[in-house]
Amino acid sequence: MHTAAVVGTGLIGTSIALALSRSGVTVHLLDIDESAARTAAALGAGTVGAPGGTVDIAVLAVPPGRVGEVLAKQQAEGLAHVYTDVASVKERPGRDVLSLADPAGFIGGHPMAGRELSGPLAASAALFEGRTWVLTPTPDTATATLNRALEVVALCGAIPVVMDGAAHDRAVALVSHTPHVVAALMAARLEHMEGDAARLAGQGLRDVIRIAGSDPGLWIDILEANAPAVAQVLSDLAQDLSLAVAALRALATGDSGQRADGVRGVTDLLRRGGRGHARIPGKHGERPSNTAPVRVLIGDQPGELARLLAAVAGTGVNVEEVSIDHSPAERSGLVELLVDPAAVLTTAQRLADHGWSVRPGTDRPLSRQP
Amino acid sequence: MHTAAVVGTGLIGTSIALALSRSGVTVHLLDIDESAARTAAALGAGTVGAPGGTVDIAVLAVPPGRVGEVLAKQQAEGLAHVYTDVASVKERPGRDVLSLADPAGFIGGHPMAGRELSGPLAASAALFEGRTWVLTPTPDTATATLNRALEVVALCGAIPVVMDGAAHDRAVALVSHTPHVVAALMAARLEHMEGDAARLAGQGLRDVIRIAGSDPGLWIDILEANAPAVAQVLSDLAQDLSLAVAALRALATGDSGQRADGVRGVTDLLRRGGRGHARIPGKHGERPSNTAPVRVLIGDQPGELARLLAAVAGTGVNVEEVSIDHSPAERSGLVELLVDPAAVLTTAQRLADHGWSVRPGTDRPLSRQP
Repeated sequence: MHTAAVVGTGLIGTSIALALSRSGVTVHLLDIDESAARTAAALGAGTVGAPGGTVDIAVLAVPPGRVGEVLAKQQAEGLAHVYTDVASVKERPGRDVLSLADPAGFIGGHPMAGRELSGPLAASAALFEGRTWVLTPTPDTATATLNRALEVVALCGAIPVVMDGAAHDRAVALVSHTPHVVAALMAARLEHMEGDAARLAGQGLRDVIRIAGSDPGLWIDILEANAPAVAQVLSDLAQDLSLAVAALRALATGDSGQRADGVRGVTDLLRRGGRGHARIPGKHGERPSNTAPVRVLIGDQPGELARLLAAVAGTGVNVEEVSIDHSPAERSGLVELLVDPAAVLTTAQRLADHGWSVRPGTDRPLSRQP
Repeated sequence: MHTAAVVGTGLIGTSIALALSRSGVTVHLLDIDESAARTAAALGAGTVGAPGGTVDIAVLAVPPGRVGEVLAKQQAEGLAHVYTDVASVKERPGRDVLSLADPAGFIGGHPMAGRELSGPLAASAALFEGRTWVLTPTPDTATATLNRALEVVALCGAIPVVMDGAAHDRAVALVSHTPHVVAALMAARLEHMEGDAARLAGQGLRDVIRIAGSDPGLWIDILEANAPAVAQVLSDLAQDLSLAVAALRALATGDSGQRADGVRGVTDLLRRGGRGHARIPGKHGERPSNTAPVRVLIGDQPGELARLLAAVAGTGVNVEEVSIDHSPAERSGLVELLVDPAAVLTTAQRLADHGWSVRPGTDRPLSRQP
């Protein structure tokens, strides 16, 4: 690949342009807001304006609803030999492409990269490093189109995953969009809670509602674009929820037959939740169960955590995950280091030798007593 | 306080006994399983068996359903002048106390301590340090009883919060028990997901479902004890959920009037979620919004995180929270350090000076692109 165009120089488009430019590709930057394209160019992402000839590939980094029309226009003008997009949903843009443009030269794409501040100034050539980048070819997609897109993914340092467009949309509805609504549903219950209730909140609640702190404006767009798939998952979840409410009400009665039904209903939900939880892999495809916790009590002085982790580093052990459980008004925190199970004892012993207060381990994630 | 008894030498009872013994209180350990009491004694928690006389306070660390009967029995035998318990629900044991025992000499208690492995071997005198410890006096509770319980809380290093028993149960239903069911409901949706969907999962989903990995056996007991309050919160949540499904279905139609209704419905839920999220304080009663993120790209070598945090320590900045975003199969991770907003630039500059790859900040928590 020698030449490329990026249409739409926001965060994602500019980051792709930076990564391609870094690899020696000549990149042309187009945006309906020319000042955004100029900003991207100033960052070293490429040059502003259409190329003289036809480039190897054009990346359409425009909103999902505009992919079809922008593709038709650029294909008519001969901007590129093949095209891809970066929209976070794939089925609707795919349908637009079929009805408006030539589908052989187009392949849908979705880089699952960290969302930062929007706009070219937040862009980074490293945005996609190690990230999943979904590509959604159809029977119409030419192999040359797929291969060119794979080249873009590779130059961005991302890991390609080929999926059907509808399967992609169902998958992100399930693993990304629905969790957002669920976090909001839980957090909304807290809006009018009684005064001291917040003082009883632990890490468990904080984890569940963390993403409910996100920008509603951003999420309304995302949820709208994938509304049917998200509604389906939530509607399935609502069935489980009404069973859970019925089971809890049965548990609350004095009747032993009803109580047995209630125990069965709640246990079934918790077990299915445990099995679903186990299907989400940790780092390197390992399950979180392939790690074990070492818990250490630390004070609240600056650098306390750094001193702890420096001591861990002395053991040669790689820390997979760190979590800190601080409660309001407390003077110390409990740090949980997730390490290889084989390294737990060495790590704990070494830390204790250095004067750290190592706490007994547990199979459960860090959370307060319910 | 000179003498105390602990009835029930599991994790919580033994930890309290250890903390009291550490402060010079003579502690007597009782358990229907005498080997548990002997284990606690071997750890230095006190001596096995009933005292010769009447102790200053007895802590009943028995299941919620047994508090009333155990209290009545021990009051009849004159074990202690006053009594408290540690049950994770307070209303039902409180009713049992009223009907079975003398309520003046009893005050309900609930230490919100880290749940570890059960049993005395997992106990620690430091278990309650800096934690919230709820006390639930009633109009019947004598002031001397409250003051003796406050002394126990202080000797355990915990922070007392006085609440009405029913308010406590509603609060833990809201901030602890319901989040658990919600995490299970979300995780249960993942049980039968299509093959590659898990590869699209990011930190947002992992946070929402983290506590769904807990032991179902433990949670069935907790949920049963507080079933009516949890059912009420979930039933309120179910109403929001059906509105959310209707709003998403309206968004999915082509009709512009319905679409406007859908936008309104989803936006309303997300905004209420944001306001509920903001009611949960961070460390020292600060809101998470009083911190700002510095993001740094790190490699996967052992000690990489320690080296990073040692560099942060050099700036004198206190890190409030650390999160690491690793995706499956990736070779590097994005670390988010939450620091005082005034310290962001110093921290970022110092890290960049030391060769770290500092990434542009954002207002949103670390999560992948949806």
